[in-house]
Amino acid sequence: MSQYFPQIPVIRYEGPASREPLSFKYYNAGETIHGKTMAEQLRFAMSYWHTLCAAGTDMFGGDTSDKSFGSGDAASLARAKAGAGFELMNKLGIEYYCFHDRDIATEGETLAETSRRLDEIVPVLAELQQEHGKKLLWGTANLFANKRYMNGAGTSPRLDVYAYAAAQIKKAIEITVELGGRGYVFWGGREGYETLLNTDMKKELDHLAALMTMSRDYGRKIGFTGDFYVEPKPKEPMKHQYDFDAATTLNFLRAYDLLGDFKLNIEANHATLAGHTFEHELRVAAINGAFGSVDANQGDLLLGWDTDQFPTNVYDTTLAMLEILRAGGFTNGGLNFDAKTRRPSNRPEDIFLAYIAGMDAFALGLRLAARIEEDGFLTENLKQRYASFDSELGRSIMDGTATLESLAAYAESRPEPVADSGAQEYLEATLNQLMFG
Amino acid sequence: MSQYFPQIPVIRYEGPASREPLSFKYYNAGETIHGKTMAEQLRFAMSYWHTLCAAGTDMFGGDTSDKSFGSGDAASLARAKAGAGFELMNKLGIEYYCFHDRDIATEGETLAETSRRLDEIVPVLAELQQEHGKKLLWGTANLFANKRYMNGAGTSPRLDVYAYAAAQIKKAIEITVELGGRGYVFWGGREGYETLLNTDMKKELDHLAALMTMSRDYGRKIGFTGDFYVEPKPKEPMKHQYDFDAATTLNFLRAYDLLGDFKLNIEANHATLAGHTFEHELRVAAINGAFGSVDANQGDLLLGWDTDQFPTNVYDTTLAMLEILRAGGFTNGGLNFDAKTRRPSNRPEDIFLAYIAGMDAFALGLRLAARIEEDGFLTENLKQRYASFDSELGRSIMDGTATLESLAAYAESRPEPVADSGAQEYLEATLNQLMFG
Amino acid sequence: MSQYFPQIPVIRYEGPASREPLSFKYYNAGETIHGKTMAEQLRFAMSYWHTLCAAGTDMFGGDTSDKSFGSGDAASLARAKAGAGFELMNKLGIEYYCFHDRDIATEGETLAETSRRLDEIVPVLAELQQEHGKKLLWGTANLFANKRYMNGAGTSPRLDVYAYAAAQIKKAIEITVELGGRGYVFWGGREGYETLLNTDMKKELDHLAALMTMSRDYGRKIGFTGDFYVEPKPKEPMKHQYDFDAATTLNFLRAYDLLGDFKLNIEANHATLAGHTFEHELRVAAINGAFGSVDANQGDLLLGWDTDQFPTNVYDTTLAMLEILRAGGFTNGGLNFDAKTRRPSNRPEDIFLAYIAGMDAFALGLRLAARIEEDGFLTENLKQRYASFDSELGRSIMDGTATLESLAAYAESRPEPVADSGAQEYLEATLNQLMFG
Amino acid sequence: MSQYFPQIPVIRYEGPASREPLSFKYYNAGETIHGKTMAEQLRFAMSYWHTLCAAGTDMFGGDTSDKSFGSGDAASLARAKAGAGFELMNKLGIEYYCFHDRDIATEGETLAETSRRLDEIVPVLAELQQEHGKKLLWGTANLFANKRYMNGAGTSPRLDVYAYAAAQIKKAIEITVELGGRGYVFWGGREGYETLLNTDMKKELDHLAALMTMSRDYGRKIGFTGDFYVEPKPKEPMKHQYDFDAATTLNFLRAYDLLGDFKLNIEANHATLAGHTFEHELRVAAINGAFGSVDANQGDLLLGWDTDQFPTNVYDTTLAMLEILRAGGFTNGGLNFDAKTRRPSNRPEDIFLAYIAGMDAFALGLRLAARIEEDGFLTENLKQRYASFDSELGRSIMDGTATLESLAAYAESRPEPVADSGAQEYLEATLNQLMFG
Repeated sequence: MSQYFPQIPVIRYEGPASREPLSFKYYNAGETIHGKTMAEQLRFAMSYWHTLCAAGTDMFGGDTSDKSFGSGDAASLARAKAGAGFELMNKLGIEYYCFHDRDIATEGETLAETSRRLDEIVPVLAELQQEHGKKLLWGTANLFANKRYMNGAGTSPRLDVYAYAAAQIKKAIEITVELGGRGYVFWGGREGYETLLNTDMKKELDHLAALMTMSRDYGRKIGFTGDFYVEPKPKEPMKHQYDFDAATTLNFLRAYDLLGDFKLNIEANHATLAGHTFEHELRVAAINGAFGSVDANQGDLLLGWDTDQFPTNVYDTTLAMLEILRAGGFTNGGLNFDAKTRRPSNRPEDIFLAYIAGMDAFALGLRLAARIEEDGFLTENLKQRYASFDSELGRSIMDGTATLESLAAYAESRPEPVADSGAQEYLEATLNQLMFG
Repeated sequence: MSQYFPQIPVIRYEGPASREPLSFKYYNAGETIHGKTMAEQLRFAMSYWHTLCAAGTDMFGGDTSDKSFGSGDAASLARAKAGAGFELMNKLGIEYYCFHDRDIATEGETLAETSRRLDEIVPVLAELQQEHGKKLLWGTANLFANKRYMNGAGTSPRLDVYAYAAAQIKKAIEITVELGGRGYVFWGGREGYETLLNTDMKKELDHLAALMTMSRDYGRKIGFTGDFYVEPKPKEPMKHQYDFDAATTLNFLRAYDLLGDFKLNIEANHATLAGHTFEHELRVAAINGAFGSVDANQGDLLLGWDTDQFPTNVYDTTLAMLEILRAGGFTNGGLNFDAKTRRPSNRPEDIFLAYIAGMDAFALGLRLAARIEEDGFLTENLKQRYASFDSELGRSIMDGTATLESLAAYAESRPEPVADSGAQEYLEATLNQLMFG
Repeated sequence: MSQYFPQIPVIRYEGPASREPLSFKYYNAGETIHGKTMAEQLRFAMSYWHTLCAAGTDMFGGDTSDKSFGSGDAASLARAKAGAGFELMNKLGIEYYCFHDRDIATEGETLAETSRRLDEIVPVLAELQQEHGKKLLWGTANLFANKRYMNGAGTSPRLDVYAYAAAQIKKAIEITVELGGRGYVFWGGREGYETLLNTDMKKELDHLAALMTMSRDYGRKIGFTGDFYVEPKPKEPMKHQYDFDAATTLNFLRAYDLLGDFKLNIEANHATLAGHTFEHELRVAAINGAFGSVDANQGDLLLGWDTDQFPTNVYDTTLAMLEILRAGGFTNGGLNFDAKTRRPSNRPEDIFLAYIAGMDAFALGLRLAARIEEDGFLTENLKQRYASFDSELGRSIMDGTATLESLAAYAESRPEPVADSGAQEYLEATLNQLMFG
Repeated sequence: MSQYFPQIPVIRYEGPASREPLSFKYYNAGETIHGKTMAEQLRFAMSYWHTLCAAGTDMFGGDTSDKSFGSGDAASLARAKAGAGFELMNKLGIEYYCFHDRDIATEGETLAETSRRLDEIVPVLAELQQEHGKKLLWGTANLFANKRYMNGAGTSPRLDVYAYAAAQIKKAIEITVELGGRGYVFWGGREGYETLLNTDMKKELDHLAALMTMSRDYGRKIGFTGDFYVEPKPKEPMKHQYDFDAATTLNFLRAYDLLGDFKLNIEANHATLAGHTFEHELRVAAINGAFGSVDANQGDLLLGWDTDQFPTNVYDTTLAMLEILRAGGFTNGGLNFDAKTRRPSNRPEDIFLAYIAGMDAFALGLRLAARIEEDGFLTENLKQRYASFDSELGRSIMDGTATLESLAAYAESRPEPVADSGAQEYLEATLNQLMFG
């Protein structure tokens, strides 16, 4: 196998005292934390698009790095990317990866030519998976980059565009199944609107739900037994996206009877753009029975766009891992690094340093979340806080036998109720103590 | 009847050329616009709390105006407020009003004493309604001001607090029914959390849903045939409120099977705090069959809190009235001015000038929305935009007979699809032309 | 002259009743408003980059429109753009334009080759200016797109990059002078930082100030008598940009003794990204003697990035024109449309419709601002509000003879002072009345 | 001395392993860190207003805690607060405190009566300072709470209000001097505007500068040798405050020649409301020679108002302490906890738990900042990054001998410059490693 990153060694765990940049300080794949290996708890995945395609372009400037991997035509580029991707996964010890159809093969002149390109690269990927023991976490279709989708795909006002999207999804589900993917993602990048002046929201949502229903039916028909995911995002590129946040998406899934087959893929940066914390969105997904997978990255709360930074804030990774542990861990999902190196981090080694930064931040987050759970203080505090509802009257509320009258009669018989301190400052100080030792 | 605003005349419509501050320039109650009188289309309501209680206090300073209305003890204050409120409604030609239980009578030492105070003032209000031909748009219970609710009411971790809230809601529904109110509102001011470190979100939402279910059952039992409303707000006072926005609230109502009895009360300022436009939230409510009532005010998009300003932005009022006209107008709901005069607008006449500003802004918005509808250009443009879905294939998508296969086969048989220009700039220019003439 | 927009007629003023999309409804170039022609009051300029270069790409998708103008190599593309630009200005009746060096000619392999390309196109532009009676409002150097500037230009930590930027500015000033430009702009797109972890802010600002000082000196040396402008923007592309807003930029200009030669180029969308209104930034510039020029566009306050929309909000254009009229109008500056058509507005005619939308919005804003000024109510109200300072004591404050002691003695001799109502709601209603008639 | 917090022991340092809530885990006053004791490096101060006055009221609800300290009339309340405050400082080992004039004595009916009350309490405070070895960090005048200031104090459009403010400042400076305060703060809570429709910004800023000039002159005259501070805040309570952020305030101080006597008091929560990080504002102050004092608290970046939380985010405290260490530490300033317990943290012990949380967070931040400085990696990395400017050409830029021509000539002689990776991810990972060990 040709070497795409000859200067980069296999990254090993050296512990927190090491000053070797190309080593893990906190991620020790085989170490057992909270009952499973770190590898299993964290299920890291490489994102094909940011890692192998994105080259540093932003709205005010062009590429800063080179992602051609020495290749020439479309076919050789596709193979080079695959080779580079598997080398990177091997060197970082990452077991999973995720892709859009257009990441693994660029689009051809016609649908048929594009399908041919996919049919050429998919066996290559299958063989690489087999050879290196890697797996596809999830696949998806890119329904937002091409100009045909500028008004949406499933929500396009044009039937031809909609049908094209259906064809593209069909193929993307097929290759996901072929590669053994356990998830299939819908991120509605252009499913939203720029202005209500030209938008029939009801019609667009009906169309989108029909497309998702057909996708579900087709996937099940061809043997896909994994999870469909919707990935909420409030805005960008569109002024308003329909899958604004977890709760909005759940309302849509309930309204069109899609919940169950569809779960959520929660992204940290999308959570904060919607006005929520990452852990809030994970909690909303979990309590609605829709916790699926995670796009691990981090935004900048002083900026109003999707920065897709590699996650390094250990408060965020700790609180996120706490939610994930409490939700029982991943089933079909995992932690996909939907993250890109900063534009000026343009050396090949920056990609590795960035993955190390993100993997170590989540590994540390896992260690700290496990410490918190094993300490038990926060859990016990929470339990005590709601203990008054364990009474007979409390149970009558949950079993549906209580009424306003029964509760009012109780209230009238009691002295003025007193609310307990929430002790937020003490809890935050305790969290610091548990985190910093 | 004693005069609380002796210096203020009855406010009359004088048309747009008048420079008399105390006159309407656009609101002409009896004039027919788009098939109904302006009074009926707009259904203006006075908010008891801002108008008769709030005195200019903010987090950095005390009262700037006097809302004692010359009264002394609690009972006389309650009567004075009622008198001032009905005088104000009479002078402004407002037919409806809205209140929290604690607006019409301050809380006593005990639940029993508080109920007694309500029983004293409610007949006074009933008589004033009768005498002046006024109606109660909706009532609600204040479950957020008293310290007992500092951790929530329906989501309090303490059973005693929860039961107290139930007792308070019971009484508030009773007086709403007694006064012929056609709506009953839940605004979950403290139903949310400050930190997930001390919050069991699932338990809190289960409790809240149980409380709303019991409230619905009790209301129906005692003869309430109007609408229950939930009023979404994303945050403030809590860090995170459960009824974040329309879609979040709809997910909750669907999950707990409350949709139908419960509709939405959409507030402009809450919409923007949640990252949406006012018209977006109205649209989401309408297409989910949950358009109920409106809290008419305006926020400042450069500020991050609920400013509750009187609405004066005519773009907003026009686009909102367009949504309301398209939703078929109000049934049980109306436009309640959940708005307060700015802290330095502290003269009694400022209250009237502010209502005039808001009523005229909405009246102008109605006139312009009607002009837009009657012009027909925007509607026709919208229809044409989606016309390709009126084909046989388009219909197969909506009737459930289309499949990914049938759509893919169609796409493969067609040339590369082309998306049409959204023409946003032209539509915005046309909107200006329709608005400014 | 070859026709780049054969389907587009010369755009004429047809008045507000016209439904012809390709006509002006409010902009009547030769009409006198408030003492000058509309053309002179508004000084519209075409932006080369958005109009002739940008093709709809965003962070999530590629081009949607074609800006090749049928050309082939770099030289013919440069000529085609120039031709298309002047045709567009002619058809819209726009007299000024603005460019970055890299807009008028793409970069070559070397500095020398790039200079050669500029030397080829500049005479073409000069001839076109002469032929069509057009003028250069301002020129600038693009110091942000190329990867060499990824860490800044004047604030780059690398001397070679800094020197390259100096060379590029030198040439850009030369061609600006050659084309008779009356302004030269510094927009510090990458002059800021991504993280303080790798940033010496003091050193970077010292370097930047030195570069601006050298630029001023060189410009004056070669005969540039116009204004240098700094264009504030708070963030994007960088996490934090040094020229955050008008006040921040003024502090920098004062600290490094550049005020006077340097004025401000205020952009509407940058104002709101910084947490200010457009009119606020115009006012700050004016009262600091630094009002220079304007980038006319509009942002979306619910979005956190620079949307660069064509301005259509008539409140904004009215209040901006009010500031501009009160500042005495433009001297060397003008209204440059730093605005791009929405990505789905991808027909050639959308460019014209967008310019018409923006020009009409500002033309209407000018008409309304003039109406407000001529009405006089707002000005008189303002004067009365501060009238108490016209007393002897008030004058002692401004002439420096008052002291805390003299003021305290006065305060002690007076009754409790009473602040007057700000009457904001009444003023907003009056503004609506003046705007909507 | 009577005990106001009998249940609270003296808080002692017990180290990070202790689970005693009422103990310090990181703050060990006498321990030397980076060359000084922790007490000296951190200079903690108690805020009189939040600690002894604020009782949990917010815009949607009343008090949740009791700050009457068992007292009756105004005079006894003032003494009780003082007693409680000094007991709290003693138990927490805090050496400094800060107040507004109206915190230490409530306002009387007249200026004379208010002065009398101050003259009564100031000797009490002086004696308590003496007895307990405490010091006044800074004093200030509350020019925002009373309704007379609803339109501003130094920027009020009414001369009488302005003169009243002058009288109040005069007295506040006098008592600050009397109590040996080393700082005097201007926080312009109402110095700003609600709408430009009624605001003459130029006039208001001229008045404000005159007031600050007179205050400086009076302070120096009566022997105040400490620092005057301005505390920037962008908004709230006003829509727009004149001292928006550090840079805006510096522009004002430069324009009116007040820099030098006036430095900045930087508040964390105000920084983020203005769109900056805490460390950014500290850096801007420092490089402009205006680093003065710090209001230590923390905001919530998902909320748009001043939450004034006790600081517990250790990233923030570490990066802030790094700036403070690099600025050479405090001279006259310190870390004042302008922070309030959350509304539901309503037990007396919550005040202590909150101070412990904040003090420990800053103590940990100091320890980590010292570790970072002593490690030296970040400093050395920064130095290397700018090393190319240490050349002769680099020096010519800073000494003013370089010109655009000399730099252009250099650039033309060199190959295409290459910008270096910023290595942000690696630096963030290294920061984590230095912080978490």
